[in-house]
Amino acid sequence: MSNRKSIRTDIAWSTPSTITVKGFDLCKDILGTLSLGDIAFLELTDRLPTTRESVVFNAIAVTLVEHGLTPSAIATRMTYSGAPEAMQAAVAAGLCGLGSVFVGSMETAARMLQEALPGSSKKADFDQLARGIVERFHGRKQAVPGLGHPLHKPVDPRAPRLFQIAVENGFDGPYIKLMRQVAKEAEAVYGKSLPINATGAIAAIARELKLPWRIVRRIVVMARAIGLVGHIREEMRDPIAREIKTRAEKEATAHLRGKA
Amino acid sequence: MSNRKSIRTDIAWSTPSTITVKGFDLCKDILGTLSLGDIAFLELTDRLPTTRESVVFNAIAVTLVEHGLTPSAIATRMTYSGAPEAMQAAVAAGLCGLGSVFVGSMETAARMLQEALPGSSKKADFDQLARGIVERFHGRKQAVPGLGHPLHKPVDPRAPRLFQIAVENGFDGPYIKLMRQVAKEAEAVYGKSLPINATGAIAAIARELKLPWRIVRRIVVMARAIGLVGHIREEMRDPIAREIKTRAEKEATAHLRGKA
Amino acid sequence: MSNRKSIRTDIAWSTPSTITVKGFDLCKDILGTLSLGDIAFLELTDRLPTTRESVVFNAIAVTLVEHGLTPSAIATRMTYSGAPEAMQAAVAAGLCGLGSVFVGSMETAARMLQEALPGSSKKADFDQLARGIVERFHGRKQAVPGLGHPLHKPVDPRAPRLFQIAVENGFDGPYIKLMRQVAKEAEAVYGKSLPINATGAIAAIARELKLPWRIVRRIVVMARAIGLVGHIREEMRDPIAREIKTRAEKEATAHLRGKA
Amino acid sequence: MSNRKSIRTDIAWSTPSTITVKGFDLCKDILGTLSLGDIAFLELTDRLPTTRESVVFNAIAVTLVEHGLTPSAIATRMTYSGAPEAMQAAVAAGLCGLGSVFVGSMETAARMLQEALPGSSKKADFDQLARGIVERFHGRKQAVPGLGHPLHKPVDPRAPRLFQIAVENGFDGPYIKLMRQVAKEAEAVYGKSLPINATGAIAAIARELKLPWRIVRRIVVMARAIGLVGHIREEMRDPIAREIKTRAEKEATAHLRGKA
Repeated sequence: MSNRKSIRTDIAWSTPSTITVKGFDLCKDILGTLSLGDIAFLELTDRLPTTRESVVFNAIAVTLVEHGLTPSAIATRMTYSGAPEAMQAAVAAGLCGLGSVFVGSMETAARMLQEALPGSSKKADFDQLARGIVERFHGRKQAVPGLGHPLHKPVDPRAPRLFQIAVENGFDGPYIKLMRQVAKEAEAVYGKSLPINATGAIAAIARELKLPWRIVRRIVVMARAIGLVGHIREEMRDPIAREIKTRAEKEATAHLRGKA
Repeated sequence: MSNRKSIRTDIAWSTPSTITVKGFDLCKDILGTLSLGDIAFLELTDRLPTTRESVVFNAIAVTLVEHGLTPSAIATRMTYSGAPEAMQAAVAAGLCGLGSVFVGSMETAARMLQEALPGSSKKADFDQLARGIVERFHGRKQAVPGLGHPLHKPVDPRAPRLFQIAVENGFDGPYIKLMRQVAKEAEAVYGKSLPINATGAIAAIARELKLPWRIVRRIVVMARAIGLVGHIREEMRDPIAREIKTRAEKEATAHLRGKA
Repeated sequence: MSNRKSIRTDIAWSTPSTITVKGFDLCKDILGTLSLGDIAFLELTDRLPTTRESVVFNAIAVTLVEHGLTPSAIATRMTYSGAPEAMQAAVAAGLCGLGSVFVGSMETAARMLQEALPGSSKKADFDQLARGIVERFHGRKQAVPGLGHPLHKPVDPRAPRLFQIAVENGFDGPYIKLMRQVAKEAEAVYGKSLPINATGAIAAIARELKLPWRIVRRIVVMARAIGLVGHIREEMRDPIAREIKTRAEKEATAHLRGKA
Repeated sequence: MSNRKSIRTDIAWSTPSTITVKGFDLCKDILGTLSLGDIAFLELTDRLPTTRESVVFNAIAVTLVEHGLTPSAIATRMTYSGAPEAMQAAVAAGLCGLGSVFVGSMETAARMLQEALPGSSKKADFDQLARGIVERFHGRKQAVPGLGHPLHKPVDPRAPRLFQIAVENGFDGPYIKLMRQVAKEAEAVYGKSLPINATGAIAAIARELKLPWRIVRRIVVMARAIGLVGHIREEMRDPIAREIKTRAEKEATAHLRGKA
């Protein structure tokens, strides 16, 4: 037992008359004062957001709650259709797919900005940094993360709105500047319209809030759990999972049944 | 194909220049205006909360974010320790356990109040209703849900604080009154101190917000997803899962290894 | 610490030179001798199957591995499409849906047989038992579990084959007899063809193997995990999740985009 | 709709009188003939194993079923303790952790062997290949995957037993030879005893069975699902999750409660 390590958590603890969360008295400091978004910020950073940070962070998080009938939403609905008594497991099933494909480009965009400007200095040579970034992705024949959108053309409306909210709250910093310069540079190099999308805007603004790139996925998971609950509610009232399954099954096996 | 049903969702949809969530324009109506908690309310009810509802709903949700080193938090940490590259799956693992044991008493309490007062009339005979409820549980030799707490004695400090927030925002209605009457009646019948706990307070206040009892679990899932992300963050920095596992494994197999 | 309980597991333990699983020496008694299905039986019952039990149990388990493009398989494929780096989480997502809807009727059938014949006596009045069962379900306007199939008509081919395997291996006992009598009785009472389906056959045979009704879901989970891995493999090579999602999304929001 | 892709699966399909799985007639070709392990092999490779392949594959799979009180087993037990009505979700929670940490070294070992000997020729220069492998890991100051074990010293008993089974069944090929040479070389370079462990043995034998390295994780997931069901069964009878949680919570927050 000599190599026994201690076990320690500083997230929450209780006495008979108090509950403390992240150093704050739940009843005195948190309840009635702080919103769910503020607590999410606290969980991610160990400190409370300022009023302005709260507005900007909530805007990011809210953007990520709901993206319609995503693969995650379909996984949640399929799971609910088989186990309605365990709706928590249906949300869990939907969260499991928030991996490299759908969340990856946001992480890559945030990381790209963070590594280009580790010190968040405003005096960087943004033209040169943007050129370096774009050349790197172009050289690998990859898309630059955070740019372009298959549907939202010529502009992803979330990007200018999120930037506006950031700027109005004093977060008009170097990462937004760099992201914009990357978009400009990429349009020249790739020879097509490549506006900043929601992913790129969130990545840049998260950096303005000093959130490390890894935190991006965590915000997605927090926010999407809320959205998936909404899908369960709709599936309960107006189910579609069975019909999606029936059609897919019928078509997918038609060639085997000789009825294609 | 004649029995093909239509597939329909009304949660979110997009055009090239707009995104609509639950009937609201994401960029114009939601971003910068609504907080994460407000969107959670929208997902649960299809409408926006009033300012007062928002304060009360956020207080409920915030209460449910973090309960320390719960079985869910340990499941999340164990999962993260094996698959840190898929933190979304670690949150999912933690959510899977939010079932009948830990969430059940809150659901039962909300259902008990809802069924006793389906019309939310203020003119009910609260004494009689409370007696009926307590007798039913006592007759089955069950605890009345929403009362008592193993640690928080003589009072669960969350309950009076949540009631205070509800009352200050105009939600001093029949369900809170009934819950209080149930507690009083139960103390007499069970012959011990049985103060309303956080579960009972949330159940009553959720009913004041006209949230059906089934919604209680959904709020727990939304809120706890946020808390579990916080546990992953701490596990990454100060891991404890391995040590918990090592100790449990050592002790649990000691009798087999002849070293008990 | 006085109320500290001991922690104990008897499943597996190791010394430097041995590994013991359920009391058997992994290297000497298990590897090279026992198959995956035998170990599954061991995990479920704490004993090894006889050769005949092994054949019958494997037949049941194998029947449950693969049911085509089920809601679970779609959930797994959707999840894999978002997080291919975490295929274990995609299998997990698919398992989450193995609840009351798809597994429930098998559990209900097994429970119905177990409760009708708790002692597995061969001298019961099978006619009367079957009548009682059928009347109970018919009185509640419910279908009798384990009977009928939407596609497999007039006979679910798995049922006679599974019964044949059971009988050939000496398991021609009272539960199979009762299930058959229930089918005969139900056809008379419901006035339509109601052959025993795979669910009913498995429920009866599981009882012949003395497996309690709760074990049925456990066999499903074990077996389906294997099948879901197969779906991931196919999704990797010939992906369909995206197309299913794209079509569903397009149709489901058409009425909102005014293009229905 | 012009860019509509077809949806197709070849895993399973049915007619009223037949069920086909992977091209085999379930009732005629599979039930009563093939074991659960054989079907697992079929799902992984699209073909049936020979008798000898079946013995070897089952030995690998069986080795992976049960590793005692792992983080996965604890996650499953914690989840079950909160949601016993959804045992499928408890297995799912346990599977979620089968990622890079616990499964990674087996994947890395299999990949290392596969890439060193892509053609499985028996005429390779095994000394040189082994030296190259060991130098690469040693140069990066990493452990060579598949070698050494914290408990099983001087030998992991599973490795020689698994090799024996492989050899007895005709799979005494170049990958086993290479793995052995890597162990010999590593002992020289790292200057300590580094016997092949179960991971290394399974990686080598999987390659002898021509299973690509990616399949290793899939076998783990299939096998461990079976083992986790066993843990749920024990947790139901002799629960330990609560006690593990209570102790961890007490110790982990002691410093906050001023009782450390």
